[in-house]
Amino acid sequence: MIADKLYEEAVKHQGVCVGLDTLEAYFPNYLIEQDAGIDEKLWKFNQKVIDATKDEVACYKVQIACYEAYGLKGLQAYSKTLKYIRDNGKIVIADVKRGDIFSTAKQYAKAHFTGDFEADYITVNTYMGEDAISPYYDYIKNQNKGLFALVKTSNPSGVDLQDVKTKDGKRVYQQMAQKVNEWGSSFRGKCGFSAIGAVVGLTYAEEFENIREDLSHTFLLIPGYGAQGGTGEDIAKIFKKGLCGVVNSSRAIISAHKGIDESENFAQCALDSVIKMKEDIGQWL
Amino acid sequence: MIADKLYEEAVKHQGVCVGLDTLEAYFPNYLIEQDAGIDEKLWKFNQKVIDATKDEVACYKVQIACYEAYGLKGLQAYSKTLKYIRDNGKIVIADVKRGDIFSTAKQYAKAHFTGDFEADYITVNTYMGEDAISPYYDYIKNQNKGLFALVKTSNPSGVDLQDVKTKDGKRVYQQMAQKVNEWGSSFRGKCGFSAIGAVVGLTYAEEFENIREDLSHTFLLIPGYGAQGGTGEDIAKIFKKGLCGVVNSSRAIISAHKGIDESENFAQCALDSVIKMKEDIGQWL
Repeated sequence: MIADKLYEEAVKHQGVCVGLDTLEAYFPNYLIEQDAGIDEKLWKFNQKVIDATKDEVACYKVQIACYEAYGLKGLQAYSKTLKYIRDNGKIVIADVKRGDIFSTAKQYAKAHFTGDFEADYITVNTYMGEDAISPYYDYIKNQNKGLFALVKTSNPSGVDLQDVKTKDGKRVYQQMAQKVNEWGSSFRGKCGFSAIGAVVGLTYAEEFENIREDLSHTFLLIPGYGAQGGTGEDIAKIFKKGLCGVVNSSRAIISAHKGIDESENFAQCALDSVIKMKEDIGQWL
Repeated sequence: MIADKLYEEAVKHQGVCVGLDTLEAYFPNYLIEQDAGIDEKLWKFNQKVIDATKDEVACYKVQIACYEAYGLKGLQAYSKTLKYIRDNGKIVIADVKRGDIFSTAKQYAKAHFTGDFEADYITVNTYMGEDAISPYYDYIKNQNKGLFALVKTSNPSGVDLQDVKTKDGKRVYQQMAQKVNEWGSSFRGKCGFSAIGAVVGLTYAEEFENIREDLSHTFLLIPGYGAQGGTGEDIAKIFKKGLCGVVNSSRAIISAHKGIDESENFAQCALDSVIKMKEDIGQWL
């Protein structure tokens, strides 16, 4: 059960998840100067970061959009990155936020839980309801896979729809939280959490109280730490009843070297940032 | 302005949009027997369908999930298919339903409006609010691109979230409809419709009255015709004040040959289905 493995890794590493939202702008100078294609450069960059950090993190989250932006070559690098993380025995969350009707979601499940783009977890958008995730259930049961469904996102306009009040005085995101918890109830591991988790943005740590009970068996993927403004103290509010998720930081880790170390040893800066993040979160646990 | 071109094509062809949700199960026997990779087979299948139908349809919608499911090879076929449609002067809607925070949506915009995966329109999921589409605005203004945002989907569990009642007695999907119309107000063409359109499922033709006014300047992408149960009469209800969208049919068109013509002339069956669909819709216009 993937939820147990992720929980265990999270406890061991203060919930730290490194986001490989790799952009050309983050490349160290030595890599920029190399005579290689974008596929090769994206891949080499990620490989260095993974090698440097893999013994210190709970998991990786790879943002597919950063690779799709480079077309087929970008997706070659994406494929190699996922495979490398898994070959190193680490958990990879593919941040794909797919969501569609049943027959299409079946294709997405095949796409991201088998073959070139196989991940351990994927993020999903369930605006379309349970049909958007039920095709994944077989993979959860039989292939040791997991999901994180969007509940409350950390971006400014997340409120446009998610914060609309419903007639029983709740918010749309609370409705979503309840649904996600309900869908996940058949997939709970020994740790008590389901393999169907929820994405809950860190910039809303206070508001998390509104959905804490609804998500009592739902493991969280928490974006927003670091470059997006979230702190260890915010995490402490979410973790006050115990560790219940992984905390993603991307830019603050994978661009930490810029202007400091532009050599092929750049990934040492990523490791330093990971250690700092672990200490920041660890002090509250 | 892409909205004007799509409107014009829709008027000319009774709004018919062919969905290239291509699956191996639809391959005619002659193609199954060919000694070629899946990339080649997907591409050849689509090419035949496009060649046969392109003079009779308003546009094509390509469901990326069907290609992602075959990994990198599938996406090669996807890329070639989009390029071929555009090279033939036809409009292609990439059904990708992407949606993410601003910085990530910027990457998706680059991914699907430039390079290997360039489309004219893409579908987007705006559960995350305006941030999820504002990075596309530059492409709409300067590169002749357009969007269709999910409002009301045609799948059974679409109601899970979309039909939740809000405190002012409306439904979540109505809130989404208003937002989409508002976001689109700066991008209206001569035809009166915006380049930011909405996906509204055909199985909810009656309910469309709840959002008709909210979407008065919003062009529609209407899935659900044919294999999903929607009829020309349903379309008539939506079009009663004039044509206001394109109507997608996939399986009923691209698998029409199965058991009837398994030769390399199979795509004639697709054309026949298109003609039938045009007559079915045309009688109500």
